[in-house]
Amino acid sequence: MLTNIKSFFEKQDRFARLLGFEIVEMREGYARIRAQTKEDYLNGADVLHGGFLFALADYAFAVASNAANNLSLAIQANILYHKAVSGGTLYAVAHEIKDGKTIAAYEVKIYDDSDNHLATFTGTVYRKGIKVVQ
Amino acid sequence: MLTNIKSFFEKQDRFARLLGFEIVEMREGYARIRAQTKEDYLNGADVLHGGFLFALADYAFAVASNAANNLSLAIQANILYHKAVSGGTLYAVAHEIKDGKTIAAYEVKIYDDSDNHLATFTGTVYRKGIKVVQ
Amino acid sequence: MLTNIKSFFEKQDRFARLLGFEIVEMREGYARIRAQTKEDYLNGADVLHGGFLFALADYAFAVASNAANNLSLAIQANILYHKAVSGGTLYAVAHEIKDGKTIAAYEVKIYDDSDNHLATFTGTVYRKGIKVVQ
Amino acid sequence: MLTNIKSFFEKQDRFARLLGFEIVEMREGYARIRAQTKEDYLNGADVLHGGFLFALADYAFAVASNAANNLSLAIQANILYHKAVSGGTLYAVAHEIKDGKTIAAYEVKIYDDSDNHLATFTGTVYRKGIKVVQ
Repeated sequence: MLTNIKSFFEKQDRFARLLGFEIVEMREGYARIRAQTKEDYLNGADVLHGGFLFALADYAFAVASNAANNLSLAIQANILYHKAVSGGTLYAVAHEIKDGKTIAAYEVKIYDDSDNHLATFTGTVYRKGIKVVQ
Repeated sequence: MLTNIKSFFEKQDRFARLLGFEIVEMREGYARIRAQTKEDYLNGADVLHGGFLFALADYAFAVASNAANNLSLAIQANILYHKAVSGGTLYAVAHEIKDGKTIAAYEVKIYDDSDNHLATFTGTVYRKGIKVVQ
Repeated sequence: MLTNIKSFFEKQDRFARLLGFEIVEMREGYARIRAQTKEDYLNGADVLHGGFLFALADYAFAVASNAANNLSLAIQANILYHKAVSGGTLYAVAHEIKDGKTIAAYEVKIYDDSDNHLATFTGTVYRKGIKVVQ
Repeated sequence: MLTNIKSFFEKQDRFARLLGFEIVEMREGYARIRAQTKEDYLNGADVLHGGFLFALADYAFAVASNAANNLSLAIQANILYHKAVSGGTLYAVAHEIKDGKTIAAYEVKIYDDSDNHLATFTGTVYRKGIKVVQ
């Protein structure tokens, strides 16, 4: 089942594909995502765009929250930026803070390949009670 | 000066260029951004990716907060998702909630071309006290 | 009905009573709350405690979100502090950003009696689908 | 020095005293706070008020962020509510996510005395560069 959900995300999440996000590891309530950065992802200050970092965290959040095959849609998210970087490989690690029948919460941390902690994200989903994949 | 800052964002913010974000209007503490959506911006649920919506709001936030030519870097942001859509032209409208010498806050609302309110974003910047453009 | 909900909050919300919060005006999706501040509400820096400001905003949020007599419980909230003050009469004004069957969002602004904007709060509720008052 | 800062908070934070918050443990970037709840802290739904939970987390955040004797003022905070309870002894545990010369971030978790995780809070401070106590 987890394999099917992984394939589903890899094929169907077109924004994640556009940005080259890869699922390194996933299980119920957990995901680790890798991103190879490109010059295209920089902002005017020559650092990775806050929107890029958020998108990476958001994808980890989506994978972790949907891994139990209960369709979960984001209600809200919050991101704290700690350190700006200009390139390299990034990792986003999502874990479940609180599971629930209809509402669940997750935390995601973003690191670079020197293990610098770049950003902290928290997000809330609404569980629809329908399957992600059959 | 505003023209120079607009040009700076248009040339230097590569992530905004990648995603096709256009500055429709900007002045100190205000920005309106337009995005033509593509299938590439969809998630697995066939709606525009939360990361895409955030990136759009974040760009409006960056443009509005830097329009006074005082380099302003995001500390944090929060997004509330109200309605999911699958395509069309979107607009992000940013305005200043509170100006300040070192800390300032902004609100951004995202709308589709039927004026549906899709998301509400708030964000905080740290003002560096240096110019964006000479 | 609105009168009953108002009475319900005035009698049953013991924390709001402890802190002297008064409902000045309320209707579906809207509330205006007044607070007379006291020295007891100050923090170590001799300004009103962030927790006090949040509690005031949170009460406005609760009143506005429950005014339609559909029990609504807070899922999350975010507060941005703009200006610190040490006393006087404060007002929190809540309005609905987005209504929804199960999820709804609100914004609350806090002002002092000179109309200084002290804080901006956003919050999300889960609607239980049961009545607040019979 | 830590003893002086602890005494400072115990004497000067009048809102924390009003609500009976006690510093159980503190060191640079860390604080654990205890609260004995009372009926006065309940809301209309007969559970502890969201504003009370926030105030508790906010106090842990203030103690942890000021423990290095560099006056640190809250810029913003976000709270996710996981579980509602009606009484007992609560604990708020704050730790530093990211230190910085002018901006720093903290996470606070609230637990009840059965170790149920009630809420997750994140917050950002601005460091003033002046001492809390001489």
